[in-house]
Parts: sequence; C-alpha cells; structure tokens
Amino acid sequence: MDMPINKGFVLASRPGPGGRATLENFALIERPAPTPGPEEVLVRHEFLSLDPYMRGRMNEGKSYAASQALGEVMTGGTVGEVIASNNGRFAVGDKVVGMGGWQLYGLNDGNSLRKIDPGKIPIQAWLGPLGMPGVTAWYGVNHIIAPKAGDTVVVSAATGAVGSVVGQLAKAAGARVVGIAGGPEKCAYAVETLGFDACVDHRADDFDALLKAALPQGIDGLFENVGGKCFAACTRRLNDFSRVAICGLIASYEGAETSELSDLRLLLVRRIRIEGFIIFDHLALWPQALTELAKLIDDGSLHWRESVAEGLESAPAAFLGMMEGKNFGKQLVKLS
Amino acid sequence: MDMPINKGFVLASRPGPGGRATLENFALIERPAPTPGPEEVLVRHEFLSLDPYMRGRMNEGKSYAASQALGEVMTGGTVGEVIASNNGRFAVGDKVVGMGGWQLYGLNDGNSLRKIDPGKIPIQAWLGPLGMPGVTAWYGVNHIIAPKAGDTVVVSAATGAVGSVVGQLAKAAGARVVGIAGGPEKCAYAVETLGFDACVDHRADDFDALLKAALPQGIDGLFENVGGKCFAACTRRLNDFSRVAICGLIASYEGAETSELSDLRLLLVRRIRIEGFIIFDHLALWPQALTELAKLIDDGSLHWRESVAEGLESAPAAFLGMMEGKNFGKQLVKLS
Repeated sequence: MDMPINKGFVLASRPGPGGRATLENFALIERPAPTPGPEEVLVRHEFLSLDPYMRGRMNEGKSYAASQALGEVMTGGTVGEVIASNNGRFAVGDKVVGMGGWQLYGLNDGNSLRKIDPGKIPIQAWLGPLGMPGVTAWYGVNHIIAPKAGDTVVVSAATGAVGSVVGQLAKAAGARVVGIAGGPEKCAYAVETLGFDACVDHRADDFDALLKAALPQGIDGLFENVGGKCFAACTRRLNDFSRVAICGLIASYEGAETSELSDLRLLLVRRIRIEGFIIFDHLALWPQALTELAKLIDDGSLHWRESVAEGLESAPAAFLGMMEGKNFGKQLVKLS
Repeated sequence: MDMPINKGFVLASRPGPGGRATLENFALIERPAPTPGPEEVLVRHEFLSLDPYMRGRMNEGKSYAASQALGEVMTGGTVGEVIASNNGRFAVGDKVVGMGGWQLYGLNDGNSLRKIDPGKIPIQAWLGPLGMPGVTAWYGVNHIIAPKAGDTVVVSAATGAVGSVVGQLAKAAGARVVGIAGGPEKCAYAVETLGFDACVDHRADDFDALLKAALPQGIDGLFENVGGKCFAACTRRLNDFSRVAICGLIASYEGAETSELSDLRLLLVRRIRIEGFIIFDHLALWPQALTELAKLIDDGSLHWRESVAEGLESAPAAFLGMMEGKNFGKQLVKLS
C-alpha cells in the first residue's frame, strides 16, 4: 500500500523551570507513515488521550513520568484501527488501544497494543473509564482508600476522567462522596449526574467554609488529584485512620501552588496513611480492574463525559486548557 | 494492713504553647496509699517508664495521647509487686505490669494489669523491649515497613527504647540498617553492640553529608522517631516504593524544629507510603509481638540498655532530660 502522510507533535522545547507550558513548546511535523516491518502493525489513530502526567514528561529530569526527549513525538494513549499488519495477532480492521502518541498513525511491534471489542461502548472509552484513568480510579479506591459503608470520601478534580470514576466507585461501596471541582456547572454535574452527595467549588471565595459544611463527619478517604489549597483545606478535615491516595498534584505542576504537609504531627495524632501511586506500577491488576469497570459500563451504572477537541492541530491548545481545568470530563482529541 | 505513705507527681501546670516543659510543671504529692476495694489490687511500683508520649499529654487539647487533667497523677507504665489483693487473679507477691503512673503505689481493678513471669529477664524489660516500646518497634517494622532482604532501613533515636529494637528486628529480616543518634558514644553502641551497619550523629556539622555517605542505596524503610531536620535529611534519600512509619516527632513536641513535607510531589514521583501509628490502636497484636520479642530476649539475640534514675523525686528531671536526648537507652525511674 501507499503510505499515507503522518502528522504529529514533537516536544520542541521545555517549559521554563516551574513555569507554564506554552504552544511554543510543541512543533508540528509531517512525514510519511512508516512501513511495518516483521511483526509490526500500523494503526490509524481515531482518538488521542490528553492527561496531566504529560506535563511532567515535558520537564527535564525525574518526574513521576520519565522525561521525554526533545524532538520526539509526544507520548499519549490512543485508540484506532489497524490498517496494515505483519503480526498474526492483529488483522486489518481490528480496533486497538495503545500508546501511539500525538500523531495520526502509529507503528507498534504488537507487544504494547491491545485489541478491543467495542460492541455498544464508544471506542474512546478505552482512553477513559475503560483505560488508564478508570484503572487509576479503581486502584486508588480499592487498594488505598478501601472505603467502608458510611465513610466519607473526598475527590478533587471530581468531574475529570479519574475523579468521576473515583466518586462513583466509592459511592457504590457505600461511602458518602464529596467532590471538589472548578465552577458551578461541574459541581452540579457531579451531584445530579454522577450521584455525588455534594460537590464544592474550589473557585468560590468561601471555599474552606463550604468544604467544612459539606463534611459534617470529616474525611475518611481522600483521593487527591489537585494538591495546593484544595489539599490543604482537606487535611484540616481528615479523620483518625483516614487514607489519602496521592494520584496527582496538578496545582503544583506549573508552580502555581505548593502542595505540602506543613506539620507531620497531623499524621501521628490522627494515624493517617498517605500514599503516592502510579497506575503503571500495577499492571497485574489491570485485567481485574477492566473487567469490573466494563461491567459497570455495560449495565449503564457508570457515567462519564468527554471534552473532545477536533483534529490533531488542536492538541496543544487542548492540553494547555486541560492544565487550567478548562476541560469538562475526559479530554480527548479526535484524530480521524 | 497499715497503708504505707504514697508519693507521686501530679501535673501542676501546662507548658506554654509550643514551649518546653519545666520542673515547675510537676508537683510532688504525698498521701496514704488507698485501701483496695472489691476486686481491686494494690501494687508497689518498682520501676516507672518515662516516654516521649507523656509530653503530648501535658498539653491542652488533642495530641496523639489524650490530654491529662491538671492535678492528676502523671500517667506512666510501671512494673511492681502486688502487696494487697481482693482479686482472685492476683496474689500478693505477683509481679505485674500496668499503667500505674508516676507514684510509689498504684491501685488497679485488675483489668489493666498483667501478671509477668520474669524468670531470668529483669522485671523492667516489661517496660522496654517486652513492653510498649518493643511492641511499637515490632509493629512499625513488620506492619508498615515490612523490610525485604537487601532493603536499607533507617531509624532515628536509634539507641532508644524503640529505635534499638527497630534496628535489630530489621537486621534480623535481612535489611541493611542505618541509625541516627545524638553523639559518637550512642553511634558507636548502635554499630558495635546493636549490630547496625552504620549510625550517623545528627549533631555532627556535616550530618547531611554523613547520612548520604551511609546510604549508598538510599532508604527503603524509614522508622521516624524524631522528625525535624533528621526527617528532612532522610526524605531526600527515600527510594521508589519506600515506606515511612511515623512513630514520634520529638524534635517538634516543644517547638524546637518543624516536621514537614515541603513538596508532596516526592510521594508521587517515588510512590512513597507514609503512615502515622500509635501502638495502643493495635492491642490485638500485642500477644504475638510479645511472644516473638520474648523469644529473641530469651536466646540473647536482642540487646538493649537502660538509663535508670534513682528514686521517684528524680522523675521530672529525668523526663526533661529524655526530651533533650540525655538518656542512653530506655529511660526508667527506680522507685523501690
């Protein structure tokens, strides 16, 4: 076959230390899609996933994701269709999920590609509730917070790809769930559609007082996606024996807010456990997580929403917007 | 029988907020020892245990130990001998361990008293390696740090009642053990007698550099008894997937140093788990812990040492000295 033209974004420069990423950090490149060698598969991407961890990779040095080399195509999760295959496990027309990156076409040796069977589920769900964000939520809820009936669980970035699943899983476990989100529209969605018991707007002037009022029984489990002042306000409400899953600290990735624990005596007085985690450390648990999540999606009990940017060219702006909370639900880019 | 005269120390006043305790906070009282009522037991105390948690109880409001009322006898662990008993489970002459407080004689309803069988083990060991400090060490090592062979475990206040047991248990589990202690004498003891691989003097001018040199493989498990600058130096050496048990933060109890985690991204980048604990929350595990510790003491493989102050009247000064690290090993007061 004639190879189509591939377009993609590479990391052109790094953001200043502790500073914001800008459009200038990304460069569009164009070259022919590669021809698959032995065992290789070529995928035409349909959706690209944009996630906060990518911001860490743009920095030099160690983050919670490995640093990405300059001039390389930006990493990212993708779903798409096999258009050429020299691998017996994949046929042309198969729908697949993998880490194809910010580009229209991706080459894979088959080892980091999974075939998916969409059925009635939209294919991009494999980048959201049935993908890394969903498994992240599942792990933090089940393996760190482990809510008991009657516990109060708080989740920040409550309507995002991870947070929305966190709250619904905690709710299903019998917990009272309080979200933290930016703006009244997101807060209303968390309560009315996701079924949270309450959701507090962190942009409100009286955020601390509103949070306190929403937490008459304090916090037994905190799923932290944001950090900064959201985290500080929550620590004041943590109960004895509470569990804190540190999944993300997006408020601190670009230096806007510090995420700190200013007095460790809190951990001692209240016998608190705090744990940072990265879902790629727990690959052995993915099949179980995905099975459980698929069941909830199949029976219609798990809700989620998406912000879809149209076309590869929109990816950098959509990514920067997500870093500021402009997305509402899982941030995707529709590539084809 | 004629009741003997009982002497004890009550909390006369509270230390200033965030300040040091002083001798004036304690008042000696004298009154006849009480006559045991139905089911009650009178114990003549032989040893009193002095422990950092007592400092928390001297404050108003919530600490990791409940606040102690003014005018009440100071709480404290004691070992002694039953001298009068209306309880079928205790006979005159029995050796017992309990929370008899800072006084020569203690009355007990029998429910919080345990009979001990000293055999060849000195009775005061039930206040040290076979008591609360030993069980605290056992819990933190086995249930929080869980060292694997080849791990590096760091413990601060390394020659103290808890720290000395922590290091020896971690060593028995196959870990490399590095202590932190105050002064060359304690450091030498940790290495030569307790068998630690290294011990770093936190009073040394180049403490940070010495600690770094002692940790070529970083830290997999940190048992924190001190906090402050010791903790800060250790956090810089924590490895991926390390576990931190927060047992005490004595450097911060009197406002001398702050104990903080200034950037939570460390927990995320390195997937660290930090957990505060108090051993009285885990009473169900005490029998197992004590059985295992007694075996190590019986076979001579567990070492410890004591600082013994003579006479009840020396208790306040010994306590204040312990808060400054003047003790060397388990701080006791010999009462009779």
